[in-house]
Amino acid sequence: MSNQIQGETHPGVEAAPAQTRGFRLNHSMLRVKDPEVSLRFYSRVFGMSVLRRLDFEELNFSLYFLTCLDEGSTVPSETDERTNWTFSQVGLLELTHNWGTEEQEGRIYHDGNAEPQGFGHICFSVPDLQAAVTWFDANEVEFIKRPEQGKLKDVVFVKDPDGYWIEVVQPDLMSRVGK
Amino acid sequence: MSNQIQGETHPGVEAAPAQTRGFRLNHSMLRVKDPEVSLRFYSRVFGMSVLRRLDFEELNFSLYFLTCLDEGSTVPSETDERTNWTFSQVGLLELTHNWGTEEQEGRIYHDGNAEPQGFGHICFSVPDLQAAVTWFDANEVEFIKRPEQGKLKDVVFVKDPDGYWIEVVQPDLMSRVGK
Repeated sequence: MSNQIQGETHPGVEAAPAQTRGFRLNHSMLRVKDPEVSLRFYSRVFGMSVLRRLDFEELNFSLYFLTCLDEGSTVPSETDERTNWTFSQVGLLELTHNWGTEEQEGRIYHDGNAEPQGFGHICFSVPDLQAAVTWFDANEVEFIKRPEQGKLKDVVFVKDPDGYWIEVVQPDLMSRVGK
Repeated sequence: MSNQIQGETHPGVEAAPAQTRGFRLNHSMLRVKDPEVSLRFYSRVFGMSVLRRLDFEELNFSLYFLTCLDEGSTVPSETDERTNWTFSQVGLLELTHNWGTEEQEGRIYHDGNAEPQGFGHICFSVPDLQAAVTWFDANEVEFIKRPEQGKLKDVVFVKDPDGYWIEVVQPDLMSRVGK
């Protein structure tokens, strides 16, 4: 058993105060033009499941909360229980659909990497990067960078249907990517 | 024990293919102007720990991978082991620092909610929303929306130091927010 720490120390970092106990990073939200297209992509290509859809009729939008369920994992079938459970999870993807955008032409959302910059990407880790690349090709996924391209070897970037960047990495290859 | 399902069915949703087994949503990346300011904010106000910093000297940037560790949780102290472990986690926040941006005046990144829109926010769930609001006020956090404001009651939005939106929710209140 190796030694353990509670996190790295860098300028600015403070120990977690008691007031933050139980805080969890529940999700990141991306707007999507057409939920049917996005749900097909994220469920088929990345194996994500929809934990909960919430509809806001007065505000004309729907939210979809997605995660990669571990094999054999399940979620509560009762609606309110599933809502509570969904917001108790860590690291979900929230897709926001403003009703009607699916009728518009072309890509309508900003990826954050072209100017003006801000948000960069979401990232999936996979057990076998080469197998994942083969899978993406079989599904005609659009590549930004293949593992052998660019300065960051063994790191892949693809685009989702709205043009958002998705990084894909294999954990045990990452210690040779950065120092 | 209530009934369980493997996720909701909606147009576009497919069952997770075997090729996606072991895929995990590892992180979402945001560019930050000054890592010391951002690390103070995310460690103090939201209780996050830095699992790993990666420096890319040739490319002039550093990456910080953060999570909310459960109480008593630790991470491997050996560097390569910690890297592998970090990329095996779910739902981290990656902060990217392009060296030198901390010298610039004012906010320099785009939050994705002003035009052009795309990325919307990250979201923390907390055990007690009112206690969290008190904590944010004690730390002079900038509010976009307090729980009692707007149409979505019991949902809070605050800004991080770069102006990115952070939603804050209490899971057992969410079943009355959306349907």
